[in-house]
Amino acid sequence: MSGVLARRRPHVAVIGPHQATAEERDQARLVGAAVGTAGAVLVCGGLGGVMAAACAGAHHAGGLTVGLLPGTDRAEANEHVEVAIPTGLGEGRNVLVVRSADAVVAVGGGYGTLSEVALALRAGRPVVGLGTWELRRGGQLDPGVVVAADPTEAVALALALADRRR
Amino acid sequence: MSGVLARRRPHVAVIGPHQATAEERDQARLVGAAVGTAGAVLVCGGLGGVMAAACAGAHHAGGLTVGLLPGTDRAEANEHVEVAIPTGLGEGRNVLVVRSADAVVAVGGGYGTLSEVALALRAGRPVVGLGTWELRRGGQLDPGVVVAADPTEAVALALALADRRR
Amino acid sequence: MSGVLARRRPHVAVIGPHQATAEERDQARLVGAAVGTAGAVLVCGGLGGVMAAACAGAHHAGGLTVGLLPGTDRAEANEHVEVAIPTGLGEGRNVLVVRSADAVVAVGGGYGTLSEVALALRAGRPVVGLGTWELRRGGQLDPGVVVAADPTEAVALALALADRRR
Amino acid sequence: MSGVLARRRPHVAVIGPHQATAEERDQARLVGAAVGTAGAVLVCGGLGGVMAAACAGAHHAGGLTVGLLPGTDRAEANEHVEVAIPTGLGEGRNVLVVRSADAVVAVGGGYGTLSEVALALRAGRPVVGLGTWELRRGGQLDPGVVVAADPTEAVALALALADRRR
Repeated sequence: MSGVLARRRPHVAVIGPHQATAEERDQARLVGAAVGTAGAVLVCGGLGGVMAAACAGAHHAGGLTVGLLPGTDRAEANEHVEVAIPTGLGEGRNVLVVRSADAVVAVGGGYGTLSEVALALRAGRPVVGLGTWELRRGGQLDPGVVVAADPTEAVALALALADRRR
Repeated sequence: MSGVLARRRPHVAVIGPHQATAEERDQARLVGAAVGTAGAVLVCGGLGGVMAAACAGAHHAGGLTVGLLPGTDRAEANEHVEVAIPTGLGEGRNVLVVRSADAVVAVGGGYGTLSEVALALRAGRPVVGLGTWELRRGGQLDPGVVVAADPTEAVALALALADRRR
Repeated sequence: MSGVLARRRPHVAVIGPHQATAEERDQARLVGAAVGTAGAVLVCGGLGGVMAAACAGAHHAGGLTVGLLPGTDRAEANEHVEVAIPTGLGEGRNVLVVRSADAVVAVGGGYGTLSEVALALRAGRPVVGLGTWELRRGGQLDPGVVVAADPTEAVALALALADRRR
Repeated sequence: MSGVLARRRPHVAVIGPHQATAEERDQARLVGAAVGTAGAVLVCGGLGGVMAAACAGAHHAGGLTVGLLPGTDRAEANEHVEVAIPTGLGEGRNVLVVRSADAVVAVGGGYGTLSEVALALRAGRPVVGLGTWELRRGGQLDPGVVVAADPTEAVALALALADRRR
């Protein structure tokens, strides 16, 4: 941690399921690595699957990782979370993940991830997706989630969109 | 309010945008009326649009209406909310709307509504939709939201699914 | 429930421990009865002890009772709660109890009750106490909690202070 | 940040008013310095007064500082907060400050601080006090808050009590 305080760096939330496929975990690790390499802070829900893989990637790249846990026990965090906040809010912590981020990258996705995508869009946070939900209303595709081709592009897009927002 | 306590009756959350079309408000009013007629408790986010129309329908049918408000001021509630809880949690109150319900009916929908649909499915609450989001992953339609043909069918489905759950 | 909507009536939170003495429960029942008789809405944490006794008193007096529960299951509410909101926020629901009230009556008190007294004073809600905490700083008694002689006086004071605030 | 992850180190919350006296800020700075020197993580509400002074002390001693903010904007954090979480929960974030800590040091105190003292004791977190609230019930002093003679002793006590708890 140099003299530049972490909170002035961009914060990227990486969201995705605790129960993830091997491919999703591989993608999440690459997303995390790109976040860490860029000097951004990685925020997530602190548990396993996509969250743990993203933290591992960021941590090995020297990045700072923050986990906002659903339960009340810090030990619930995956081993690559540096700062673990046991919120005790259950899925209510999803709101905090989104509020803590300048941009969001979604990898895969169950219903919990979908709630974070929606809360992020509601709060005006840009969302970039990798193999995540496709949202339609009245037969029309909703343009909220920016689809990326691969992890590197996802993080580049997230950082560019975060930068435009700050 | 008879001797049977309200909390033993089924609770149906009606979710939908504050900025709603006339058609969505008409549908929400009919949904609310059916909830009230069935003797169920109507839970919502307490504001305008779909929420106000649903409360009006339920209230005129003699139903009990509960509004879980995002802000800290009870006066923020629409005029048909009987019990207003100013949570001060912002969009974090969406989690409470879902937790308070045995089933959810979504009418139309912006991103806030989408977050409630997702949180409900995550929490195992059945969700019935009227002109709401269509969710797809990997080109496949997600079966989480049960599509209803009209407001009467929506409430009948919601009550049947709530009953199965209790 | 007449035509006058519940949310326009004053809301009084009754706070006190789940583990309560017989005397505290007796006082809480009288407090609840006075709240109900006055046509005010009783808000509480929804569990046993002081909370259950207050709800019983209010309910038998024809009052409306609201329970903001720490857990996620409505069945956790005591049997005299009419509207039960399972917040899932744990002790975080104490903030909601206070935000929902125009005035607070504290009967007895453990640490949870103390947190509600403090949060109420922080939010500018008047607090009336019956056998509750005495707060001192630097040897000086803090005047925040208005001490009442008995349950009837406690509710009269709470309603007068709530009225001044509205 | 060495290889040892931050979350395995003890976490000490330093709580106290935003509007603080010069003496309280001096004490808070020394408390923060002792927390940082001990290699513990400092958690606080992220704003000014006692919170800012504690963060400054910890930061200059090389410690990691976490601020759990009441609002939704990271910029609200004092300049010595390294990791800022904008919770958007208002005073509801007090619950998170306490849940994130293994022990709590209270310096001075308004009603917000009192709520954190109470929530900490409710959650079984040890609380050490410097010029903070004195709690009495039925004329008896409550032993919950351990009174320290000075900042160094306060942190030594907090770390010893945290250690016993882990």
